[in-house]
Amino acid sequence: MSTVYDVTNWTISANPSVTAYSDIGAIINDMIANIKTNQPNQASKPAAVIYIPPGDYSLKTRVTIDISYLQIKGSGHGFTSLSIRYNSGNTSSWSEINPGGSHVKVENTDGHSEAFLVTRTPNNTPRLSSVEFRDFCLDGVSFTPDQNSYLNGKVGIRVDSDNDSFRVEGMGFVYLEHAFINYNADALNVTNNFITECGNCIELTSAGQASKITNNLIGAGNVGFSIFAEGHTGLLINGNNIFPRGASMVHLKNTSQSTITGNRFHNFYPGMINMEGSNNQNLISNNHFKREVETYSPFSSKNNGKDDLYGLIFLYGSNNMVTTNFFTYNVASSSIQPNSSTTPTMILVKNGAGNFISNNYVVSNVATNHVVLDGSTTGTKVLDSGATSEILAYCSSSAYTLRPTP
Amino acid sequence: MSTVYDVTNWTISANPSVTAYSDIGAIINDMIANIKTNQPNQASKPAAVIYIPPGDYSLKTRVTIDISYLQIKGSGHGFTSLSIRYNSGNTSSWSEINPGGSHVKVENTDGHSEAFLVTRTPNNTPRLSSVEFRDFCLDGVSFTPDQNSYLNGKVGIRVDSDNDSFRVEGMGFVYLEHAFINYNADALNVTNNFITECGNCIELTSAGQASKITNNLIGAGNVGFSIFAEGHTGLLINGNNIFPRGASMVHLKNTSQSTITGNRFHNFYPGMINMEGSNNQNLISNNHFKREVETYSPFSSKNNGKDDLYGLIFLYGSNNMVTTNFFTYNVASSSIQPNSSTTPTMILVKNGAGNFISNNYVVSNVATNHVVLDGSTTGTKVLDSGATSEILAYCSSSAYTLRPTP
Amino acid sequence: MSTVYDVTNWTISANPSVTAYSDIGAIINDMIANIKTNQPNQASKPAAVIYIPPGDYSLKTRVTIDISYLQIKGSGHGFTSLSIRYNSGNTSSWSEINPGGSHVKVENTDGHSEAFLVTRTPNNTPRLSSVEFRDFCLDGVSFTPDQNSYLNGKVGIRVDSDNDSFRVEGMGFVYLEHAFINYNADALNVTNNFITECGNCIELTSAGQASKITNNLIGAGNVGFSIFAEGHTGLLINGNNIFPRGASMVHLKNTSQSTITGNRFHNFYPGMINMEGSNNQNLISNNHFKREVETYSPFSSKNNGKDDLYGLIFLYGSNNMVTTNFFTYNVASSSIQPNSSTTPTMILVKNGAGNFISNNYVVSNVATNHVVLDGSTTGTKVLDSGATSEILAYCSSSAYTLRPTP
Repeated sequence: MSTVYDVTNWTISANPSVTAYSDIGAIINDMIANIKTNQPNQASKPAAVIYIPPGDYSLKTRVTIDISYLQIKGSGHGFTSLSIRYNSGNTSSWSEINPGGSHVKVENTDGHSEAFLVTRTPNNTPRLSSVEFRDFCLDGVSFTPDQNSYLNGKVGIRVDSDNDSFRVEGMGFVYLEHAFINYNADALNVTNNFITECGNCIELTSAGQASKITNNLIGAGNVGFSIFAEGHTGLLINGNNIFPRGASMVHLKNTSQSTITGNRFHNFYPGMINMEGSNNQNLISNNHFKREVETYSPFSSKNNGKDDLYGLIFLYGSNNMVTTNFFTYNVASSSIQPNSSTTPTMILVKNGAGNFISNNYVVSNVATNHVVLDGSTTGTKVLDSGATSEILAYCSSSAYTLRPTP
Repeated sequence: MSTVYDVTNWTISANPSVTAYSDIGAIINDMIANIKTNQPNQASKPAAVIYIPPGDYSLKTRVTIDISYLQIKGSGHGFTSLSIRYNSGNTSSWSEINPGGSHVKVENTDGHSEAFLVTRTPNNTPRLSSVEFRDFCLDGVSFTPDQNSYLNGKVGIRVDSDNDSFRVEGMGFVYLEHAFINYNADALNVTNNFITECGNCIELTSAGQASKITNNLIGAGNVGFSIFAEGHTGLLINGNNIFPRGASMVHLKNTSQSTITGNRFHNFYPGMINMEGSNNQNLISNNHFKREVETYSPFSSKNNGKDDLYGLIFLYGSNNMVTTNFFTYNVASSSIQPNSSTTPTMILVKNGAGNFISNNYVVSNVATNHVVLDGSTTGTKVLDSGATSEILAYCSSSAYTLRPTP
Repeated sequence: MSTVYDVTNWTISANPSVTAYSDIGAIINDMIANIKTNQPNQASKPAAVIYIPPGDYSLKTRVTIDISYLQIKGSGHGFTSLSIRYNSGNTSSWSEINPGGSHVKVENTDGHSEAFLVTRTPNNTPRLSSVEFRDFCLDGVSFTPDQNSYLNGKVGIRVDSDNDSFRVEGMGFVYLEHAFINYNADALNVTNNFITECGNCIELTSAGQASKITNNLIGAGNVGFSIFAEGHTGLLINGNNIFPRGASMVHLKNTSQSTITGNRFHNFYPGMINMEGSNNQNLISNNHFKREVETYSPFSSKNNGKDDLYGLIFLYGSNNMVTTNFFTYNVASSSIQPNSSTTPTMILVKNGAGNFISNNYVVSNVATNHVVLDGSTTGTKVLDSGATSEILAYCSSSAYTLRPTP
């Protein structure tokens, strides 16, 4: 019994008119049912690889994955920019207008929002393990009410059960409101993907540990998160090129002992790294932050609602280390919010004790506050991160230590 | 003559009853013999890809690879936690109890310890090149005398000849005493693997140069090494999430001019980075080190025999740079070794001259010595890595330079 | 109609005697023509994967790719060192003498220099997207006039039209004068490749943005560039192991707001990071630079024409941040250029304002100038990067700020 499935040569015996082109979701669900019939017992649960050759497929039925070890694999992430297309007016002369590769259009007619749901109930023991998504394209097709809204309710992949050692790699996600959501991840690996023009790109919810988001190209819309991590510890975010827009580019919620290092960030709004709840003992180092004004006219009226006092990094929690980052800020005074006389903030320590900020460099077209300390903060150390005049403390002078950059 | 082999449709003509399910090792050895018959001459030595579809295979005969360019490839690393399974008591209700993916159980009956041995004798000229292991699972099945011993003598892959440009990628290794051993590596690439619950994960022996261990998830047992490098120069260890346990997480032996940067380390013992012999001019930067007490009760009596004076980083050699690391230490006084009044060491400079330690930050539940300088050390510089009271020097005051964190 | 093509079972109907072994270029071109006949309309342009099984293929006709989404994929990068072979004298006893894997010999007889040309004219709207090169070997076979010249005019892949979201991954390139050239890249991903013994490895020309070169093994010849980037912004160069030689290892030309971090560099010449034109707001951090003399006798007479006053990093531009790098320099006085009394330069700030240099460490066998400031430079800050005697300023004392390493 082969464990290698190809969506283009599968027939659902109960419904033979369905093809991968008409509903790849129904095809894959039928394959999964078939895979289960070949799993002899608890000790031997071979799964399979489901291959999606290059082509244009419509997904009308949500795929539900409730087995471990399944790999779904294509031959190409197939991105092309739908945002440029939809904002370009007449495209009748264009060579192509849609994404390609192993191209799955998310067009559910089943009332569900997800293309793929990974969940096992009631008995998810052990946790679902080693499900892999590789090298295909999930395309949400269009946004509503307009193509620049980043809204359509669509979810590319939602993992809704505790899980271990999952892998999302080489994928393309485009024009989905949520590209990838994972609930309670352990040792998750999100690497080498192309996740752009989505409302939200990577959302790690509830809790999680020891995961990594590495070596990706990522760019969310102005309404959501490029990366969101809730209740995580030991998350490593390394080596990503994260470009506009993203209401937050990395949004930490009650996330601690995690590492954001060696990334390049570029955005049009403050709050590039944002925090919510209590976030402690995180390392934010060695990143390049570029902040400028929106460069693409269709989005010039968009923003994330934050003004320039919010900080490119908004720190909320204790004992974080923010070091060796480079901030380049280039915003005309007339575009600075709330008004042109505002001095923009690079790092805002909004809350917490014992944060350590060192060896950061800022290049800007206007005077900026490199570090701003809220009145409630205590024990912050600020070393070599700006001149005295560039560090603004609302707390008492005994509540922080400053060694200005000479 | 096809160069694409599938283990599930191969028959050994001399022994047709053997299948990949009964002995995948014998099958692959027979394929390699066949590949050689299709290598016309010295100038044209095409190898092959040997494909392991998803499924459960037993390896009873060691595979010996003595040709360059062979790729062995599966469709899924297939990890599931055997450690949790074996420590969970009754698992009769579990959905699955073994790893999956392209799942090779290492069950040698041939008297050998290795699943794969890569060696070429007597004439290994040029060095074996570009052998690739990709995307399958090597599972040692069980440990003895008990499942928490990390001992069974089994080796996933041993490379025993000089080699160049090898690649280990996307693999899963579990419950092997030694996952991957490589002797005299040049330009080795170990990337994007899942190597956990093994006695030792990556062991680079003898000597080597210009290799990299990047973007992996790694976690060894308490008895061995997560990463071991002997006689290496120019090794790059970057972007890995390395979690418990590991007697040493990175163990350098006579290894110089190598780089450990942008990793996340988490362990339950001191000696997270350990050194043996003379180790010079290494860069250890930009890493997050989390040290706490064992969190999983079956292992609460385990340790690596080192006390809290050993240092989370144990530096043995000269002219190393240790900079911009973040240490989070959270151990109840009652668990600190050798006794509750011990002041734990973060960085111990045990030996050597001219080590440079700068811009490190420590957060701890107890007072710690951020840096301890042995009496034999000379010329150490310690900058911005703790208050004067947090730097303990057994050498004379002229033997080091201190600029305390203000 | 299958979208999965295999070069070994394709026949060109107009020329049935051609095989992939005799001319893989002609075969792939015919496949591309066939792919186009299966692209129904602008809204549905499925491409394909063209698979190159392991084997030795000759490319005599340039492949021209003018469609998006095409993936060309092999099963192994197949590197072996041709440099060692050609410098070893009698190799008649060698096991193999040529590269392998999915091995494409670039042997054009069509008058063209490229193996693969990606271009779409006249109408490249939208930009070509998501073309992928994966896991095969492009081998230039030999250099002329001698095997150590790195010259043969051959180009592995040239992308000559504006492009988006391309991917070069897992490839091997060897003995090409130019391995990979890309013109006007957006969100290019060059990752996990083995690009060595080429005159030039990665050349990003004209302009580009938001690309990444990550997790590669790279080593160019003494005549060219390991990495060249022109007119780029937001390029991320992270986690690469870049070894000799390379006239420049990273050469930036009018490139700004880019990041070189977490890499290991090893070379035999100055100018390891080199700049041309105006290069601003770049972050160079957390890298290991090893400079020694040539170790391989056939190349002992080679160099890049630069003397030791040039700097291991040659900085030309403003507002760059150079921090937390480790330089190890080991050159016998007798080999130092222009003469043995020269004090070698580690970082030369040749030009510009507002460069920020901090927390760099140098280990050397001779006295060195850690930082040299040209007379024209202004506003440089040099912190913790050497003693006062190790910082040489030709500018006035008011034109820079120095905090020497204590």
